[in-house]
Amino acid sequence: MKKIYLSPSDMPKQWYNLLADIPQLAPPISPVTGKPATPDELLKIFPGPILEQEMSAERYIDIPEEVMEILSIWRPTPVVRAERLEKALGTKCRIYYKNEGVSPAGSHKTNTAVPQAFYNKICGINKLATETGAGQWGSALSFATNIFEMALKVYMVKVSYHQKPYRKSFMNMFGAEVIPSPSIFTNAGRAELERDPASNGSLGLAISEAVEDAVMNDDTNYALGSVLNHVILHQSIIGLEAKKQMEIGGDYPDMVFASCGGGSNFGGIASAFVKDKLDGKKVECVAVEPLSCPTLTKGQFTFDYGDVAKMTPIMQMFTLGHDFMPPAIHAGGLRYHGDSPIVSKMYQEGIVGARSIGQTDVFKYGTMFAKTEGIIPAPESSHAIAGVAKEALACDERGESKSLLFCLSGHGHFDMASYDSYYEGKLEDYDYPEEAINESLKNVPTVDLS
Amino acid sequence: MKKIYLSPSDMPKQWYNLLADIPQLAPPISPVTGKPATPDELLKIFPGPILEQEMSAERYIDIPEEVMEILSIWRPTPVVRAERLEKALGTKCRIYYKNEGVSPAGSHKTNTAVPQAFYNKICGINKLATETGAGQWGSALSFATNIFEMALKVYMVKVSYHQKPYRKSFMNMFGAEVIPSPSIFTNAGRAELERDPASNGSLGLAISEAVEDAVMNDDTNYALGSVLNHVILHQSIIGLEAKKQMEIGGDYPDMVFASCGGGSNFGGIASAFVKDKLDGKKVECVAVEPLSCPTLTKGQFTFDYGDVAKMTPIMQMFTLGHDFMPPAIHAGGLRYHGDSPIVSKMYQEGIVGARSIGQTDVFKYGTMFAKTEGIIPAPESSHAIAGVAKEALACDERGESKSLLFCLSGHGHFDMASYDSYYEGKLEDYDYPEEAINESLKNVPTVDLS
Repeated sequence: MKKIYLSPSDMPKQWYNLLADIPQLAPPISPVTGKPATPDELLKIFPGPILEQEMSAERYIDIPEEVMEILSIWRPTPVVRAERLEKALGTKCRIYYKNEGVSPAGSHKTNTAVPQAFYNKICGINKLATETGAGQWGSALSFATNIFEMALKVYMVKVSYHQKPYRKSFMNMFGAEVIPSPSIFTNAGRAELERDPASNGSLGLAISEAVEDAVMNDDTNYALGSVLNHVILHQSIIGLEAKKQMEIGGDYPDMVFASCGGGSNFGGIASAFVKDKLDGKKVECVAVEPLSCPTLTKGQFTFDYGDVAKMTPIMQMFTLGHDFMPPAIHAGGLRYHGDSPIVSKMYQEGIVGARSIGQTDVFKYGTMFAKTEGIIPAPESSHAIAGVAKEALACDERGESKSLLFCLSGHGHFDMASYDSYYEGKLEDYDYPEEAINESLKNVPTVDLS
Repeated sequence: MKKIYLSPSDMPKQWYNLLADIPQLAPPISPVTGKPATPDELLKIFPGPILEQEMSAERYIDIPEEVMEILSIWRPTPVVRAERLEKALGTKCRIYYKNEGVSPAGSHKTNTAVPQAFYNKICGINKLATETGAGQWGSALSFATNIFEMALKVYMVKVSYHQKPYRKSFMNMFGAEVIPSPSIFTNAGRAELERDPASNGSLGLAISEAVEDAVMNDDTNYALGSVLNHVILHQSIIGLEAKKQMEIGGDYPDMVFASCGGGSNFGGIASAFVKDKLDGKKVECVAVEPLSCPTLTKGQFTFDYGDVAKMTPIMQMFTLGHDFMPPAIHAGGLRYHGDSPIVSKMYQEGIVGARSIGQTDVFKYGTMFAKTEGIIPAPESSHAIAGVAKEALACDERGESKSLLFCLSGHGHFDMASYDSYYEGKLEDYDYPEEAINESLKNVPTVDLS
């Protein structure tokens, strides 16, 4: 096992901002006025420094010292040469992974949870509201709000709330209040419960509830775990570290893989390598998404809402339609209809690539990774593993030998039930849900930017 | 956060054997003959190299290359200065922890699972039987048998089998067969089910079932996750690494703490420091055990069986009586009536110390650790945390400032239900069960060594 550690003193002290180098994004549109959202509208739910980062064109942005101190609890994270996985695959490719599962909440989400809590805190905000699907984001933010002594309300998709009781235990332990969504505490929640009293909820709806909570309560702000520009910015630390570590290891990736739901994990590890690519270096970044929720590979690049209740700004992105309801695959973190505007723009411009993989393959290679590398991956992360494994085998067939890097975004210790389903043969391999997507794409809003 | 990494090339290449330096142990006694057990009796369930290590007086024993390769998947493990915990305690002491939770199975148990599987494999054994209480040992051994392509049957204490379904999922994933104990597959299991069809089982009984399985099946050997000399030997790598890391960090511990059930975690980290102490250096090693199962602090140093059904060799050790049934505390791994003969001998001779702590304090300091250091500890490991925290506070009162090292034997990702109980105020703080111990101590066997 070749583990490449970065010395704590070599941890990046600045985030890298993709907005400085990729083609300009369309502005976010207010769901109320249909015109570009004004800072005042956004300041209702976000603190000033976060909003600045959301719009900033500066290439490098300093990481505050207070944030560095907390990140350094688990960072820099290791890069590992997956020699035993290579052997099991019988590949001539060199496979490396950046292990973000070592964070307190067990995933890369903590990288943005800490600065988001910090910036809110220094702006005098002591309460946050957010949503969580699989529970990784809620866990990460509860860790962060506990550090900065803030209150946190987490609207957790009801089906996850019941399926993953230990994620709730985790959040409770760090002082968060966890509310199954749909709840009776918001208009969005009540409307859904009226429509279907037995509703299992969805990520889009939980977002609506959390945003409404923040809009209705002056003392409460909202925090989002993916999609937005400032989140991708905070996650750039993954790629910056990984690039240094590959240099230390004497290699450079021909290809970089990460799973992609909202896009923060992919955007995070890709960032430093996309910069290299724009500077003329040869490197390919590939987002891997579920076959059953193929936002980039089968969605449309257009303006759409980020949530079901149409409370979020309308953004130009790849989307399957804001009311698209993906099948209940086990990678809950990838069940989102949209994608980060930054990642979407990069894909649209051909700067990065994307692939979709069904969950049988995802679990096949995820378990192979567990057995060889000794880490049980989150089902989300296994999408990247499957992407890399398939690429390695394809390289072997072509007689090529590539250097492949992927982001292991998190461990699967809270996802064991999904492995049970896999071994019991109960995992359905949902195909690309073409009709449902065509239907939901009819409901995207029309935006007139003239 | 001061993290002290050891370079992979500095990983110890030999285990340290306490038997070379501590006063001689009494021999194990055959449960059949009442005389010292013969190698032939023990070879029915253990492979030759393991038996050699069990009896060896050599100070250093080479770690086989094949074992080194697997251990290096996660070793060397980090030593971390717990600065944020120190701050939360307000102590002037310096607190360090050795993090064994980074192993594939999430605890120190993997350190001995790998060599045990390896030695069995090279002796032509392809099937192992074992027991597991909380599930950590079964998980570790399933990881190891998967690596060496062996079959594994795990008798899992029935109450844990139902309480911790995800531990079972973990073992299944790595190819192990998990059987709730008491089972109908052994005489010991059937006898218990006859006595009480609704029996929840116990560790002592699960051991009986696994030993019986190995005795009755020629192709099957038995593996034990703690107590025995060879297990303490394999765990010595923890202390050897930690000592090097403390040197790198420019400090030396005044005291070393570890939780103590069967004794392998404590014996493992203590080993290198006990050697220093015997060489004249000033260092104190302290085993921390549950108030409700106070083997060292309230037990008797005498000969006793390792299991309920009296199938294991009789060993001289601290014991509460082999049929002592501890209250159902959440640190399942510490609910064992006996203790490692090596650790027992060291405690009897005054070479190491011991303390007992109730579970309310254990969870109080365990959650404090989680919130400050960002790692959810296993309830077993939290005994060491509580021991260190109380010592630090006592030092402050005395105006002393000590260097305190403890072993974080594992993470608590599969123990979240116990944290729920704690936060819901449902945790009972069982007192020292004096009457039950007096009763069970009446049943220890009489051994005549003359």
